[in-house]
Amino acid sequence: MQTKTLAAELSYIGTDFHGFARQQGLATIQGALEDALATVFRHPVETVGAGRTDSGVHAYGQVVSFQLEADELANRQLSSLVNSLNALTPDSILIRSIAEKPEGFSARFSAVSREYRYRIVVGDIPPLFIAPFAWWLSGGYINVSLMQEAADLLVGEHDFRSFCVAGSAQDRSTVREISSINIFGMDHLGESCIVVQVIGNAFLHSMIRIMVGTLAEVGLGRRDPQWLAEVLAAENRQAAGQTAPAQGLTLWRVRY
Amino acid sequence: MQTKTLAAELSYIGTDFHGFARQQGLATIQGALEDALATVFRHPVETVGAGRTDSGVHAYGQVVSFQLEADELANRQLSSLVNSLNALTPDSILIRSIAEKPEGFSARFSAVSREYRYRIVVGDIPPLFIAPFAWWLSGGYINVSLMQEAADLLVGEHDFRSFCVAGSAQDRSTVREISSINIFGMDHLGESCIVVQVIGNAFLHSMIRIMVGTLAEVGLGRRDPQWLAEVLAAENRQAAGQTAPAQGLTLWRVRY
Repeated sequence: MQTKTLAAELSYIGTDFHGFARQQGLATIQGALEDALATVFRHPVETVGAGRTDSGVHAYGQVVSFQLEADELANRQLSSLVNSLNALTPDSILIRSIAEKPEGFSARFSAVSREYRYRIVVGDIPPLFIAPFAWWLSGGYINVSLMQEAADLLVGEHDFRSFCVAGSAQDRSTVREISSINIFGMDHLGESCIVVQVIGNAFLHSMIRIMVGTLAEVGLGRRDPQWLAEVLAAENRQAAGQTAPAQGLTLWRVRY
Repeated sequence: MQTKTLAAELSYIGTDFHGFARQQGLATIQGALEDALATVFRHPVETVGAGRTDSGVHAYGQVVSFQLEADELANRQLSSLVNSLNALTPDSILIRSIAEKPEGFSARFSAVSREYRYRIVVGDIPPLFIAPFAWWLSGGYINVSLMQEAADLLVGEHDFRSFCVAGSAQDRSTVREISSINIFGMDHLGESCIVVQVIGNAFLHSMIRIMVGTLAEVGLGRRDPQWLAEVLAAENRQAAGQTAPAQGLTLWRVRY
């Protein structure tokens, strides 16, 4: 039987989920999506996500691929499948589109790069409208230029062992390549935040959140930008800063 | 005894409230603020708001004035009063600042102009991250230029009887002056919306929501821009379009 490969692009508010990856008995994005697909097609449908977002992490442009029999799709418009899945999933998940892809396409393995954005609100006044989507660093002032200088030291191919949850890598390689980090100010719903935009091929577990927690130390003036070179060289999680909270992170876009 | 006049600037998410104005037994912004003030100062404190926002309407820069005895403020920093009030009010209310004002200042009567912003999301894909703060017009396409052309007919001093809840004006004047309406696109948290920015001295009940509902008819191509002149001239609520939903509206800023 002929199969077709599809890719869905979706956004979600991670707040109410135990992360992307399906887990028995817990609310997850993959679980909700696979349940909805099973309801529509009356059989289990396995999905593959471009990035496994942790508990509380959001996505603007997560991509999920799955396969169906050609005849299951024969009399169905993909736009009406989008509507059905949106009706069957929680309101905090929004399927933006579904498109057919060439045979062999995998949301995970075909991805060329992944972009994440991390939002920080600095100052005495906490965020209100964007509170679920930002890390509030109360008080103080953040120096974006120093933070950018520090971030530039992370761009390129490096062993990012210092920026991954201790023990999670085990014997596997912790070498990754970051193609760019840009830090800029942006207003959302009237509230000012600093966005740390990170683009790379793939990332280790909690890597971006540890990077942001470490860069924040520089931004707040507690460390010099050059400290990042030491942290990288240490190849030890203890050398880096705190893990920035999940709520500030959004999987922004996946390029193929 | 010497009294001092204070003004608080506050933001709130209107979703969970029955509007700004205090109402017995209902959750309101004014009620929550006055309760918090009464807790801090151990006596009732009356407040005056710059704009009475309806149920579900948000505020970025609402201004509220109130008076206290000078000796109640003698050993108190206004920034610590901000913190106390934020701790005592629901999370969906954020007091941004409190400042002392000249005697006789009233958040309502001293206001020179009020700015409101109304957010519209158009297209097949509903808003997700900004869903609580926008009106989703599903499908179709909105022509912002035609909408702006129509809006220009509302600028200036006019009798806005057609744009006010029928019967609410009674014998009172329905003449108001709008100083500007600007309609522009803006991105928030990755989602595109159209912002209708309206600045004027004062507004009738539901006036901006009826204006937006009427302008949307033009933007969607169902009416010509010139229709707005007819609607104005009719001086009859029936002549205008629908009342756009409360969630899209935000009291943005009050100028003194």
